[in-house]
Amino acid sequence: MDVISNIIKKNNTKIILVVLDGLGGLPVKDGKTELELAHTPNLDNLAKSSALGLHIPVDLGITPGSGPGHLGIFGYDPVSYSIGRGILEALGLGMEVKNTDIAVRGNFATVTYEGEKVIVKDRRAGRISTDENREIVGVIRERLREIDGVKIFIESGIEHRLAIVFRFPEPLPEGSDDINDTDPQVEGAEPFIAIGRNPNAERVARIVNEFIKRVSEILKERERANYILLRGFSQMPGIPTMEERFSIKPCCIATYPMYRGLASLVGMDIIEFEGEDLKSQIDTLKRVWEDYDYFFIHIKKTDSYGEDGNWEKKVEKIEEFDRELPSILDIKPDVLVITGDHSTPSLMKGHSWHPVPVLLKSPYVLGGTSSRFTERECLKGELGIFEAKKLIQLMLAHAGRLKKYGA
Amino acid sequence: MDVISNIIKKNNTKIILVVLDGLGGLPVKDGKTELELAHTPNLDNLAKSSALGLHIPVDLGITPGSGPGHLGIFGYDPVSYSIGRGILEALGLGMEVKNTDIAVRGNFATVTYEGEKVIVKDRRAGRISTDENREIVGVIRERLREIDGVKIFIESGIEHRLAIVFRFPEPLPEGSDDINDTDPQVEGAEPFIAIGRNPNAERVARIVNEFIKRVSEILKERERANYILLRGFSQMPGIPTMEERFSIKPCCIATYPMYRGLASLVGMDIIEFEGEDLKSQIDTLKRVWEDYDYFFIHIKKTDSYGEDGNWEKKVEKIEEFDRELPSILDIKPDVLVITGDHSTPSLMKGHSWHPVPVLLKSPYVLGGTSSRFTERECLKGELGIFEAKKLIQLMLAHAGRLKKYGA
Repeated sequence: MDVISNIIKKNNTKIILVVLDGLGGLPVKDGKTELELAHTPNLDNLAKSSALGLHIPVDLGITPGSGPGHLGIFGYDPVSYSIGRGILEALGLGMEVKNTDIAVRGNFATVTYEGEKVIVKDRRAGRISTDENREIVGVIRERLREIDGVKIFIESGIEHRLAIVFRFPEPLPEGSDDINDTDPQVEGAEPFIAIGRNPNAERVARIVNEFIKRVSEILKERERANYILLRGFSQMPGIPTMEERFSIKPCCIATYPMYRGLASLVGMDIIEFEGEDLKSQIDTLKRVWEDYDYFFIHIKKTDSYGEDGNWEKKVEKIEEFDRELPSILDIKPDVLVITGDHSTPSLMKGHSWHPVPVLLKSPYVLGGTSSRFTERECLKGELGIFEAKKLIQLMLAHAGRLKKYGA
Repeated sequence: MDVISNIIKKNNTKIILVVLDGLGGLPVKDGKTELELAHTPNLDNLAKSSALGLHIPVDLGITPGSGPGHLGIFGYDPVSYSIGRGILEALGLGMEVKNTDIAVRGNFATVTYEGEKVIVKDRRAGRISTDENREIVGVIRERLREIDGVKIFIESGIEHRLAIVFRFPEPLPEGSDDINDTDPQVEGAEPFIAIGRNPNAERVARIVNEFIKRVSEILKERERANYILLRGFSQMPGIPTMEERFSIKPCCIATYPMYRGLASLVGMDIIEFEGEDLKSQIDTLKRVWEDYDYFFIHIKKTDSYGEDGNWEKKVEKIEEFDRELPSILDIKPDVLVITGDHSTPSLMKGHSWHPVPVLLKSPYVLGGTSSRFTERECLKGELGIFEAKKLIQLMLAHAGRLKKYGA
């Protein structure tokens, strides 16, 4: 990527990246994939005059989580930059995470006390309701805001799950998250003490152990959910921003916290807006059009229905997008890319490793290779099958933002 | 590959890799390749519903030998792991090679003595017959079994060729094979003394020089083939086994010693069986089906006839395989891959660098891209053109043996 940083130039072009989460599929009905089953006259039309291909999110055969999937299409090597579990969980719950922070996942658990000993009776506190979880978190929040100058932020997840962010006064050195899980993973055992594997991590572990102690005091009268087990301590990966690397000013127009969080990790501005549908996203796009030059639009439901194995609904979501596509084209971006972060074939009810269809519209394409925007038609396209992390190079090139390399 | 080792998981799936040696070809008759000329109704049928593509054995334009060709499709970087000539020769003659061993190729040569000096008259001893070679080897074997605790194994090759394995009492440190050839490569010159380029290699060289001296004493009354010239000293490369790297239990069902040897280098169990045809191999496959989860089946003749430039016979061998294919499909492997280790176009009468057709059958493919299993139809396939060493990742993914990467 040194080549890129040496040939980057700025101009006034506008680039849109539309991510239909989990877009790629496999044959699920009459030998056709979700994209093939969908009635998509606008995408078909656009495909005929666009550059098509498929991207490999991480590597052949590797099924990416949402983190690696998005890092790739944002132009980052998903193997070099890994995002810890705690960070992703916190982002998913809409929490802010900074370079001063340690994020961690937690469970409310039920313990008993045998003398000095704490014994885990139920690692999930009987899977308490999300409402009960929120009540407890409310109580903790009120009574525990800070420990030795370290601010504490807690957010409820589903049922017994939660995320905690410990915010230190200064940025944390690398390795500060090198701390064992306190969750013993089995019932009848004692929770582990958090131990830092280096001096910086020791400092964090001290706060963590104090936090657990105080929480257990706050909850000690409860019959269940009277303790907290933590796992996946993680800090912000040291990721240079997209602006630093590509000299573009990027923003994110997404509804789900996880994707807003991922976008913020690479330095995108997160745009606030009302509404949850694609129409509101496109209205927002128009509203901020003059303020940025790279716009990441994230559409979640294609993935969700793929995960459910509900191909009919995934097809519907693709068709919904197709209906809104003209209003995106009306904005006349210089470069428009439509793709996914990974495949989520309804057939497999989960993420998969299969290459993901990519459509790139710009004035500088061959086009005419394919009749539709589907996995099989993309195989005929001019972009071939390429690594996701190189998508940014194509987008920048088509936007005239890369100078000639060498004389 | 650290990514892979972190996401490997075990399950009960069965994977078959069929290697038709030297499979790929070039147009040789009516503009058609061997695969295109062959009548292959079963392969055609399978191709329609499988994932197709081509693999590049080593790199663009690089023609691999059998060693690199097989290492790649077994999932090993053929450039990082190189197999010495001596090892390959010994394996090809059906000799066992262990981590205690130094293997080397040899020629019987004719020398004359001028005082203290040994002068090479004929580096190939007049290309003695293989029978004469075997006779001489028999004599040496009888009289020279060990030198200073190092066991000596000799095997005749074709005409004047042979291979020798020196088996030391303990595993040899890396670099023990760093010894010059003793073959001077020209006639009228003296053979070189073997010199080790480090202390471990010196210890080996001492045994080698003693070996050459003793052999020349045994053969000194002969008019020709009275000396031995050695080249390509090599020891076992430190290759982690497939089981260590991929948590699969692999076995090899091959008739030719070279391929059995290559398979043993990566830790495959070598299955013994009667017969030399594909039917016996498939019977053997059925017999050991419960004992392994990865089955390497090697078919040699496609390469041999390609090397001879005999495209009619190569076509016949492909058609023979096609007829047996249904009995492999009957076993219902979870993943079946059919490919070659490299191309051997009859047109070129030798190995070549051309990408090799790959067919992957599993429930998780797009399919429907191609009508036959040929070079040109594979170009339309969903796997694209990819590096051979990544084939294992695809096979493991399709077998459900790779977990999601990242959250």
